[in-house]
Amino acid sequence: MKTHTLLMPLDAHLHLRDGVMLENIAPLSAYSFSGAIVMPNLVPPVSSLVDIRAYKKRIMATVPNDYFEPYMTLFYENYDKNFLESVADEIIAIKLYPAGITTNSEGGVSSFDIAEMRPTLEAMSELQIPLCVHGETDGFVMDREAEFMSIYELLASNFPNLKIIMEHITTKEAVDMLDRFDNLYASITVHHLLLTLDDVVGGMMMPHNFCKPIAKRPEDLDALLSIALEAHPKVMFGSDSAPHPQEKKESCGCAAGVFTAPIALQLLCEIFEQYDKLDNLQAFVSDNAQSIYGLCPEFKEVILEKRAFSIPQKYSNVVPMYAGETINWAIQSVE
Amino acid sequence: MKTHTLLMPLDAHLHLRDGVMLENIAPLSAYSFSGAIVMPNLVPPVSSLVDIRAYKKRIMATVPNDYFEPYMTLFYENYDKNFLESVADEIIAIKLYPAGITTNSEGGVSSFDIAEMRPTLEAMSELQIPLCVHGETDGFVMDREAEFMSIYELLASNFPNLKIIMEHITTKEAVDMLDRFDNLYASITVHHLLLTLDDVVGGMMMPHNFCKPIAKRPEDLDALLSIALEAHPKVMFGSDSAPHPQEKKESCGCAAGVFTAPIALQLLCEIFEQYDKLDNLQAFVSDNAQSIYGLCPEFKEVILEKRAFSIPQKYSNVVPMYAGETINWAIQSVE
Repeated sequence: MKTHTLLMPLDAHLHLRDGVMLENIAPLSAYSFSGAIVMPNLVPPVSSLVDIRAYKKRIMATVPNDYFEPYMTLFYENYDKNFLESVADEIIAIKLYPAGITTNSEGGVSSFDIAEMRPTLEAMSELQIPLCVHGETDGFVMDREAEFMSIYELLASNFPNLKIIMEHITTKEAVDMLDRFDNLYASITVHHLLLTLDDVVGGMMMPHNFCKPIAKRPEDLDALLSIALEAHPKVMFGSDSAPHPQEKKESCGCAAGVFTAPIALQLLCEIFEQYDKLDNLQAFVSDNAQSIYGLCPEFKEVILEKRAFSIPQKYSNVVPMYAGETINWAIQSVE
Repeated sequence: MKTHTLLMPLDAHLHLRDGVMLENIAPLSAYSFSGAIVMPNLVPPVSSLVDIRAYKKRIMATVPNDYFEPYMTLFYENYDKNFLESVADEIIAIKLYPAGITTNSEGGVSSFDIAEMRPTLEAMSELQIPLCVHGETDGFVMDREAEFMSIYELLASNFPNLKIIMEHITTKEAVDMLDRFDNLYASITVHHLLLTLDDVVGGMMMPHNFCKPIAKRPEDLDALLSIALEAHPKVMFGSDSAPHPQEKKESCGCAAGVFTAPIALQLLCEIFEQYDKLDNLQAFVSDNAQSIYGLCPEFKEVILEKRAFSIPQKYSNVVPMYAGETINWAIQSVE
């Protein structure tokens, strides 16, 4: 049987939520990943040292028997340097949301006033705290990410020593932006390597494929695949796995988010094998994130095998992407 | 109180369905419209003289007390001339669906082979039976209509005496195509004068705004508005009002179709007044269709008044567009 081994897989962008949802889904990531960069968009957002420590503790309590490192992030606000110094050792990055752009982002940045942001972003540069960005404007849904490129330019050129990660990129424009500034990096989800808008509203309306940023055009998908499959060193896998209870996804006005955490490695094996690029998967799911963030995860070995794997209809009350469908790779063992 | 009078409003593209749904919704169109061009995509489709007569009878039975003319259409197949002669007096047009492109279109045209279609389309030209077309390819959802323009070109240039109606157009490309061939016409829905893709998946996922062709980009909306508001003589209002039971719209994998029949005239008044073009509405909702199809509807006068009108949450089991929202025009009386 064909197998493929991944060492210390990392998820560079993960929503673990809180409460019962956290308890239900954190173990799924902890099983197959060495660690994950955990998004801070709780209600209220994670924005103090107390919040960070308490949330990390709640996460760890759900996975007592697995080795799994939650790399914590802080919700971006204009913080002063003293505060940033006090939290620098406890976070991996600060996550910036434009206000109201996605789930629980109401307290985000409402205008990109560089003068106003400068003290925070300069302190982050000095303290070597990377800035993770949800890069969308409030424009037309298919243009939001492309329109945000000018803001990436502004940030990258004004703060050349700040590591900026364009999170969950979905467009050719973002791919083209990546090499224009040394300090720009990107994460890519697995669902954006598989879906276009056709899979959301091209046939029937598919709420479980609905997310923000929305899946774009076929040429965008091709551009994302090209840099993911070559494991471009500035690009890393971040699932943006975003669970919602089934009833919230399947009712009128469904919430945005695709749930992929427990099937991400299997899907990635399928994609990379399909293009004969399995050798690059290790860099995409771990090595690149290790060097971008300077991480040293403890040893974890995940062996995947090529066999039919039927994706469960649900993980507790959350419907995963491709629920009920059969894919060609499964997890054989984790050590 | 400000009022606006419309004479003999016509709906140039309407889905009346069958059975209980027909009974529930046909009276809503019959109340405010003089007549409607009724789509043939039942299961099985309306494709014989017997079908046409029986369906018309079923429609008329639901509206015994209103003056309302259902102008019948036949589902396009490659028919021979004798057959077309036998039905010519009983239909207003023939409706062509590419196979599988929308609700109940499985028996449609799977390849646009002009040689194969020529006998039918030439007979239609001679018999002066217009061809109504659902113009979408099976390509990427945002490109389907634009890609279909080459097929309109092929049809319009090969059959210059055939009246071809580009149904429910949604793109700048279709607007630009309109004046390129004398024999091309178009219908436009009210929802495509109001929605873009932002209203479908830009915020949360909105199944009641989901239809085929899907609402497109802001610049497409602008192009549609420009020809509708001027009441371009080759353009007519066709609601494409397409009811589905609430549970089919609000469950996972929701069906395509926006239900507007009972609120269309009110919304049109609102739109045309907003752009100070109320004087053109009569041509858009009746006069243009009368001259394009050569119709002489009996007298019906609909007086609309400018006052708050709260759109019902449901009409029987069907949720209309903008359910629960308040608009500025209401129907005052119908005579």
